[in-house]
Amino acid sequence: MNPFAPTDSFARRHIGPDAAQVAAMLEVIGVDSVEALVAQAVPGGIRTDTALMLPEALGEQAALTCLKALADRNQVCHSLIGMGYHGTHTPPVIQRNILENPGWYTQYTPYQAEIAQGRLEALVNFQTMIADLTGLPLANASLLDEATAAAEAMAMCYASARGKRRTFLVADSCHPQTIAVIQTRAEPLDIQVKVEAPAEMQAGDADVFGVLLQYPDTHGAIDDPAKIIAQAQAGGALAVVATDLLALCLLTPPGELGADIAIGSSQRFGVPLGYGGPHAGFISCQDRFKRVLPGRIVGISKDADGQPAYRLALQTREQHIRRDRATSNICTAQVLLAIVAGMYGVYHGPKGLKRIAARVRGLTAVLAAGLTRLGHTVPTRFFDTLTFKVEDPAAIHALAVHRNINLRKFADDRVGVALDETCDLDLLDDLFAVFNGGERPDFDAEALSEDVAVEWPEGLTRSSAYLTHPIFSAYRSEHAMLRYLHRLQHKDLSLTTSMIPLGSCTMKLNATAEMMPISWPGFAGLHPFAPREQAQGYQALFNDLEGWLAEITGFSEVSLQPNAGSQGEFAGLLVIRAWHRGQGDTQRDVCLIPTSAHGTNPASAVMAGMRVVAVQCNDRGDVDLADLEAKAALHAEKLSALMITYPSTHGVFEAEIKRICDIVHERGGLVYMDGANMNAQVGLCRPAELGADVVHLNLHKTFCIPHGGGGPGMGPIGVTAQLAPYLPGHPVISPNPDAAGLGPVAAAPWGSPGILPISYAYIAMMGADGLTRATEAAILNANYMATRLAGHYDVLFTGDEGRCAHEFILDCRAFKASAGVGVDDIAKRLMDYGFHAPTMSWPVTGTLMIEPTESEELSELDRFCDAMIAIRAEIEAIASGAMDRADNPLVNAPHTAARVLADEWAHAYTRQQAAFPADWVRTHKYWPPVARVDNAYGDRNLMCTCLPMEDYR
Amino acid sequence: MNPFAPTDSFARRHIGPDAAQVAAMLEVIGVDSVEALVAQAVPGGIRTDTALMLPEALGEQAALTCLKALADRNQVCHSLIGMGYHGTHTPPVIQRNILENPGWYTQYTPYQAEIAQGRLEALVNFQTMIADLTGLPLANASLLDEATAAAEAMAMCYASARGKRRTFLVADSCHPQTIAVIQTRAEPLDIQVKVEAPAEMQAGDADVFGVLLQYPDTHGAIDDPAKIIAQAQAGGALAVVATDLLALCLLTPPGELGADIAIGSSQRFGVPLGYGGPHAGFISCQDRFKRVLPGRIVGISKDADGQPAYRLALQTREQHIRRDRATSNICTAQVLLAIVAGMYGVYHGPKGLKRIAARVRGLTAVLAAGLTRLGHTVPTRFFDTLTFKVEDPAAIHALAVHRNINLRKFADDRVGVALDETCDLDLLDDLFAVFNGGERPDFDAEALSEDVAVEWPEGLTRSSAYLTHPIFSAYRSEHAMLRYLHRLQHKDLSLTTSMIPLGSCTMKLNATAEMMPISWPGFAGLHPFAPREQAQGYQALFNDLEGWLAEITGFSEVSLQPNAGSQGEFAGLLVIRAWHRGQGDTQRDVCLIPTSAHGTNPASAVMAGMRVVAVQCNDRGDVDLADLEAKAALHAEKLSALMITYPSTHGVFEAEIKRICDIVHERGGLVYMDGANMNAQVGLCRPAELGADVVHLNLHKTFCIPHGGGGPGMGPIGVTAQLAPYLPGHPVISPNPDAAGLGPVAAAPWGSPGILPISYAYIAMMGADGLTRATEAAILNANYMATRLAGHYDVLFTGDEGRCAHEFILDCRAFKASAGVGVDDIAKRLMDYGFHAPTMSWPVTGTLMIEPTESEELSELDRFCDAMIAIRAEIEAIASGAMDRADNPLVNAPHTAARVLADEWAHAYTRQQAAFPADWVRTHKYWPPVARVDNAYGDRNLMCTCLPMEDYR
Repeated sequence: MNPFAPTDSFARRHIGPDAAQVAAMLEVIGVDSVEALVAQAVPGGIRTDTALMLPEALGEQAALTCLKALADRNQVCHSLIGMGYHGTHTPPVIQRNILENPGWYTQYTPYQAEIAQGRLEALVNFQTMIADLTGLPLANASLLDEATAAAEAMAMCYASARGKRRTFLVADSCHPQTIAVIQTRAEPLDIQVKVEAPAEMQAGDADVFGVLLQYPDTHGAIDDPAKIIAQAQAGGALAVVATDLLALCLLTPPGELGADIAIGSSQRFGVPLGYGGPHAGFISCQDRFKRVLPGRIVGISKDADGQPAYRLALQTREQHIRRDRATSNICTAQVLLAIVAGMYGVYHGPKGLKRIAARVRGLTAVLAAGLTRLGHTVPTRFFDTLTFKVEDPAAIHALAVHRNINLRKFADDRVGVALDETCDLDLLDDLFAVFNGGERPDFDAEALSEDVAVEWPEGLTRSSAYLTHPIFSAYRSEHAMLRYLHRLQHKDLSLTTSMIPLGSCTMKLNATAEMMPISWPGFAGLHPFAPREQAQGYQALFNDLEGWLAEITGFSEVSLQPNAGSQGEFAGLLVIRAWHRGQGDTQRDVCLIPTSAHGTNPASAVMAGMRVVAVQCNDRGDVDLADLEAKAALHAEKLSALMITYPSTHGVFEAEIKRICDIVHERGGLVYMDGANMNAQVGLCRPAELGADVVHLNLHKTFCIPHGGGGPGMGPIGVTAQLAPYLPGHPVISPNPDAAGLGPVAAAPWGSPGILPISYAYIAMMGADGLTRATEAAILNANYMATRLAGHYDVLFTGDEGRCAHEFILDCRAFKASAGVGVDDIAKRLMDYGFHAPTMSWPVTGTLMIEPTESEELSELDRFCDAMIAIRAEIEAIASGAMDRADNPLVNAPHTAARVLADEWAHAYTRQQAAFPADWVRTHKYWPPVARVDNAYGDRNLMCTCLPMEDYR
Repeated sequence: MNPFAPTDSFARRHIGPDAAQVAAMLEVIGVDSVEALVAQAVPGGIRTDTALMLPEALGEQAALTCLKALADRNQVCHSLIGMGYHGTHTPPVIQRNILENPGWYTQYTPYQAEIAQGRLEALVNFQTMIADLTGLPLANASLLDEATAAAEAMAMCYASARGKRRTFLVADSCHPQTIAVIQTRAEPLDIQVKVEAPAEMQAGDADVFGVLLQYPDTHGAIDDPAKIIAQAQAGGALAVVATDLLALCLLTPPGELGADIAIGSSQRFGVPLGYGGPHAGFISCQDRFKRVLPGRIVGISKDADGQPAYRLALQTREQHIRRDRATSNICTAQVLLAIVAGMYGVYHGPKGLKRIAARVRGLTAVLAAGLTRLGHTVPTRFFDTLTFKVEDPAAIHALAVHRNINLRKFADDRVGVALDETCDLDLLDDLFAVFNGGERPDFDAEALSEDVAVEWPEGLTRSSAYLTHPIFSAYRSEHAMLRYLHRLQHKDLSLTTSMIPLGSCTMKLNATAEMMPISWPGFAGLHPFAPREQAQGYQALFNDLEGWLAEITGFSEVSLQPNAGSQGEFAGLLVIRAWHRGQGDTQRDVCLIPTSAHGTNPASAVMAGMRVVAVQCNDRGDVDLADLEAKAALHAEKLSALMITYPSTHGVFEAEIKRICDIVHERGGLVYMDGANMNAQVGLCRPAELGADVVHLNLHKTFCIPHGGGGPGMGPIGVTAQLAPYLPGHPVISPNPDAAGLGPVAAAPWGSPGILPISYAYIAMMGADGLTRATEAAILNANYMATRLAGHYDVLFTGDEGRCAHEFILDCRAFKASAGVGVDDIAKRLMDYGFHAPTMSWPVTGTLMIEPTESEELSELDRFCDAMIAIRAEIEAIASGAMDRADNPLVNAPHTAARVLADEWAHAYTRQQAAFPADWVRTHKYWPPVARVDNAYGDRNLMCTCLPMEDYR
């Protein structure tokens, strides 16, 4: 080794096993070298011939220095652009203890409710806050952003019309990106979107299934939407209102004005701008829509001891499970950011929020008074935004930027000014100078502020209370808040506790050096519609990252816009669709999808206007080539695409992938590769070389963006050169201005740029060699565990040489008959051992899919294997009659402290067996905070807002 | 309220009780208003007439913006100055999860061992690392810095000579600040310090009690100290070696060369420079010195169940307990920073450390080769530092600064270059240009590096292994490290869990906005001896902070140098001593100290060359005025000072404080006020107005610097104008260059500047009104708790109107007889309720002293009161015979999970009573990781390095 190489090289920190551990593992597996193992796992002909070409790996500090230089190239102005994005103060206690805390950002989606009570409670706070502020009874746990939330609302309205109506009216006073995303989503479904001034709307028309209004609107106007809402509903349509949470602290909420659905963004509740994302979009609705509401809903149920317990509600309702009957492909949320917004509400409480809202309104009143004094004609009814005409907009913008201020630009002679929590009277003085030719006028904001009525004017004044639940008043001091956050954190099992071996979810290390830059103002502080020249650091970062991802996937171009894997799927399919149309093949609408596919695939295909045709899989989980050939031939005329996951959802490198792609190509179709399993490919093979035309990458799986307890994600897509012109654009600032392209699939031009430094740092610190070794280690770790567990469980679906890729499946189906034990019981029992369960019953019911990732070292793999083997012995004891079939540690799992401390212990096994089934829990016990959660009870008695206090213990 | 005030105002976050809570508490206390309560607690005549004059309070974001502007005024150069301070990479996983994690920085000193096992284990790692690297068997848990460690070592040597020898030889090749601090400490003790070239030393002379050598020395030379060590020991003296941990990865350690004691700094093991501190000094020694080793030692014992458990060892040995027989006043450590350094060792392990050391050595070899090629004459034997002559040093320094590099300056024609972990070949190219008149030479470092032998040269090559304990190899991957840190964190009770009501220790909120700036490179990255003009931000911060502290205390000048309360005491007394001498009163050496004083007071007085004369206290804990008058009269000729704590150590505002000061002044003495209880004074009264001449402030108590689990602290002093000329100076960069002053009392000119932004932010965000309200709230909280508990416990020592100040004492002495229960049992039982005990048996044996601080809100105060009342009921049950006297939840406390889960439960109370004595622990249980620790066993079987692996469970 070069003695002068940096001493903080990263790959050895990221990759779990060191040389000695690798040697020990190879011996267990029974192969001579990692290379030999990989050769067995990855079929000949699949491996790439050309090694990755990436910059030399940086040490951790060098990478931080490099990212700091990029951040410094971004100019952080005070952006008063509005359009759904506003400056906000993230309370430091929330920033440090949630956003910057691996105890909060490394958890998985809360499918295992018993070990996710902390963030589930935090999400119920968020839901309660959204429901209260919008005046509607039911809110979900967040959507991706305001524009996609609007599109989801459209889809809800459309589904309600059951195909009998096709027109959706959209107010032209909605944000332009909201309108554009709606149009992108409507087009493949043949929905007619009419963008009109509200005054012109014929909301009662027979073909109208829904209407979208914005309140306050994008220009700051506040018009009562009640009349149009009533008109729409009278005509049999539904009414959606896009709204602003801070304004609703003063304004009558949409629910009280009759709206069926409200949507918007919670960004301004403490979530940094991040050049557009991530932040949590929200949606709330009347109770009757609970089964069509997209996304996740957290509900309250009870546990096996009758205590209140949170869990994801109505899961059968979830869109991705409905496959080609789905009306949405949303299968995640923006959990981390929703929690931040919810905690912002908890910390400020109703009084604090109202004070913030009133202050913003008051500042805007002072601004209006000053502008009037300067001779401008400004609106008289406003919350935080003024849009008005000026003589020379270009001069105004130049003066503003000179003072580090961005205003909203228009194509005509208007300018827009949107104030926020971070503004103050000094800033207004700067604005007065901007609107006074650059000179300070003879008055100042301080003086004006004394004469301005800061109260809300007549009409639409909110009279209803909000955030009346005690939780929104209980944590006002920083100590109280700090302890509340830590109490919740300790209820959750995260990567700080133990490995989370989720198949297909790649819960790898989210390294600190990757995470640090996202807090820096140079990345966190930019408005998405800031002038492009202010974002040179971001543009350089995008450029590098797109290039690196293109090199890794073998594709020509990459779009960073899709802000979740599901959105990548949708965008990728739209690109394929657009390409076919560009070739004149408008009839190509068949999407072949193997039966083994994740439910999101068919859901996305349907959203992209395609017809789903299933392709059979053989008993190894591989695509049935004969069936594929037959289906491709049958639909040759109409074949649009095949969607395929690689390595397969069964965790195997299918040897025939190239042949599969050829078959589709031969029939004129294109191949969409689902990149969920890309962690097994990086450096070993490239989707493009295998024959794919499009791939989406889950940056939150393969490229180290943390799962955040269920979001944020990022799902960029890579495409071949011929498809590049069709990548998504944007109406405000386009990421591909030279191409016609698609409309946008997300609200912000580059999706969620605020978290892209994470993936950038990862690739920069790993380099080509590190990335390839990581993939090899992921395969090694999986095969080591499969080998250790093979004597105890049946391992399903291995490749030709008996090896899995980076994940493997354990068959647990026989235990139901032999011992009355299901995978659920194993999953819950693992909690007693301090582990999160692997993926359950997917892709095959009754199985567990284990993906260790490369970041886990031997001792942790062994600990998990030991737990699984011990559980297997417990199952055997039940089967043999040594343990009671009805009263055993599996069916009663997980065991809370309250349970095992009961004064009476009437079980057929000991307290020690219950809570201390392994040595390591004696020194470090994770205690599940609740016993097994009763899902059915919760769904029958749906409650999705904070529990009445008397129900708390 | 001004509607345009910032919405993130801080005082309402810092102060626990809001208006409604205050009203409820006043009702319980039975007073009408906070003002009325304060009037009862603070005697008339004590209150100040002039309100605090401080800048208007800033909102949290505005304060961060203000501090960012200060940080930006500091110029962060690559400092190659050396002198004990070196660039280092803090591993990000350690930075985020320790330094920036309230779960690690808010704990108290680990007196309650059972709930401090996490940091105690971390400290044993540190001790093991220091012992291993220095080659000596025993290391303590850190000292304040290298210079004070050297002075402590001198004191150890001096104590060993039992007054029979007075000469201490110090090599002139030690760091200048080390020599200066030794001189400061030696002078009042009448120790003769001879600073000599090692070659000149007569180490075997009869009057020599000790010798200090530096290895490698301050100029980078590496001379074998064995001969002088042997000479000294042969003559009956002890040998101390100041050394460098990184060099010892390659060099034969001092212990193997015969040294009795080794000292140094662990800063370069991952601790940011911070313009001089904080970081952990270290000391290690031969086993026979264990009872005179200053500071804290963590040892391993066993708990009541026979399991290994850590705790502070040999506490009776601690210096501050020995009062005027003490040889040191050290009563804290730099725990947080020692943990960082120890974890740096754990993360890198022996191989990693050796690689870092070899790389630094290799880079220095390349530097030497290049400099030689450029015609310079450089040493041939070096580790990381080269000192050599140049023709025009000023030109060299100018060229270096031009390239953002600082070199070491000398008064003569030498320059020094010290390389470190953060250097690389590119930096060497810059250096070559600097030493080549500004032009790049015709060779580069990369090329040179290929021809350079990076190996260590002959002689003094380390052959012994180090860090062989498995813990230094077990956590190499970031995931493994992350989980280790979180496992340890979860063992500790910190302010993130619950209030820590420690009397005299003021465990208030350490707000996030206060903590964030200390991580910024603009504060963290400066070398203490960087040119003053590069530290303008720091200088402005010092200036403001000194001014604010002067305003708060009423004094004329403030010195920020003392980096712990004990150092503040020592410095303050030295100032008094110097003033008397300045007046020609060399005979004044009597220091009056009330018997109620903390043990540090007499220890400091002895160190300052004073004779301690005790003054009696009455049964209320107040100074006995008659005795004071008598003692002052008796010692009038020789009276130097009175040391007094205010409010008193008994938690009462003594009405006679002004009279007390007058008595001392009348006899020609000065008054030293111990500021430990300053939290009860801020805004209400001022030490200077009460008559004090000097006060020290514990910034880690009153001014929000976190306790860090036992350090860092900061103990600046304020003095009257007449004393200002005598404040501490510094030989390298003096904080008061215009005055003669004292020598330095700490290694760095301004102590630990890296944490001063915390106190700065606190004062800036609170403003005069907020600070005053905080003091009132501290008094309110204490009196509320005292009132609630008064019906259950006897409250000792209240003021004339029955009120306490900010803390109060509960008398528990009677329980020993009535129920066999001691304060220890109550303290341990509180752990079962999830609480840290109050201060035990101080100032009165058998009592508990409770200080809630202003940051706790009503619900937390009530929770603690409920726990105390429930425990009182348990005591009553024992006394009445309802509970067993020998087997009850108090004597068996704390109850670990393992204990209460035992299959057999043979106790006279239930498992539920044991572990769930209150409602709140059912929803949020802190589990003590070990049962009661056996201190006597540990002291009898002293073990202070990592346990053999077989002893781990």
